[in-house]
Amino acid sequence: MASREIEGLIQLLARLPGLGPRSARRAVLHLMKKRESLMVPLAAALKRAAEALKVCATCGNLDTSDPCALCQDARRDRSILCVVEEVGDLWALERAGAFKGLYHVLGGTLSALDGRGPQQLNIDGLIRRAGAPELREVVLALSATVDGQTTAHYLSERLATCDVAVTRPAHGLPVGGELDYLDEGTLTAALKARRPLSS
Amino acid sequence: MASREIEGLIQLLARLPGLGPRSARRAVLHLMKKRESLMVPLAAALKRAAEALKVCATCGNLDTSDPCALCQDARRDRSILCVVEEVGDLWALERAGAFKGLYHVLGGTLSALDGRGPQQLNIDGLIRRAGAPELREVVLALSATVDGQTTAHYLSERLATCDVAVTRPAHGLPVGGELDYLDEGTLTAALKARRPLSS
Repeated sequence: MASREIEGLIQLLARLPGLGPRSARRAVLHLMKKRESLMVPLAAALKRAAEALKVCATCGNLDTSDPCALCQDARRDRSILCVVEEVGDLWALERAGAFKGLYHVLGGTLSALDGRGPQQLNIDGLIRRAGAPELREVVLALSATVDGQTTAHYLSERLATCDVAVTRPAHGLPVGGELDYLDEGTLTAALKARRPLSS
Repeated sequence: MASREIEGLIQLLARLPGLGPRSARRAVLHLMKKRESLMVPLAAALKRAAEALKVCATCGNLDTSDPCALCQDARRDRSILCVVEEVGDLWALERAGAFKGLYHVLGGTLSALDGRGPQQLNIDGLIRRAGAPELREVVLALSATVDGQTTAHYLSERLATCDVAVTRPAHGLPVGGELDYLDEGTLTAALKARRPLSS
């Protein structure tokens, strides 16, 4: 139907998360209608970003510089380190703006099912950074899933020999969440960790 | 949070239909993780397609050649012309594989609300093509909306002076559609156009 160039483009776009073959086709139609204002700039932006892309050797963040902008930022609190699974988690925390320390990207969780052991994750780097004299706390901001919590447990044991406090984010009701729609696990955790109302 | 190059890329991707700021961010993360296998090829494919893109002067299709592959194809039936609103509609009909004639892309429908009159659409080109001696039928495959049907009515009047049959696709139950979920308009149209079961 469409030419080889256009079909190839549809197939590549369909590999993006959230786009299937049908929506990729719609996206390509949209791009073709806006060739000068969208298609050409997008091609250039992708090329530029791909060329500039670097993995931060310190924390594992993806950025256009190494060390990444966060690791270079002198205003970040170097006494606290937040361990996350993926770069997307780091971005989510930065959007929230609630954390002013440094990050460490593991690259996933331990998973017996997927055959991911400690060697596949950036754990040695974490232990090395945890030995820094200025570091006082490591926050294990991992998913509240079985794999995430197994990894947190494993990391807390590995970090036991370092002179740092090991913490995790609170479990509880999400802001805006209605009790009726929440699962039993969340409700139990939220009730167990209840706090005086005045605080 | 992310560097200027990456933020720019997210903003461009967020302008694609079906992607918002959040899913564009997820798409960019995915691209950055698959730099060599997806990001670099996608940038190249976009650039190539943008450079090769042409609007077919005959039918208005978007392709990498002018006349487009469909207009050039000697196997297509030149006695029947299918009028569609947008290139996406043409692609949809080609996917169905039910039409073997030529197409004509209007570029939209008449719309008093949006200020689109006959001059904004590729109607003169259609009238010119309808005068070709080999043409016998024009199918007005326009949306079953008020604007679509207004446009079809207008076109049928303009085509009255040409020596061609003017038809439209049947209205009725969509294949796989359950009666219970269909609107009254579709049900009325389907009942009015009922056919003997044996046909």
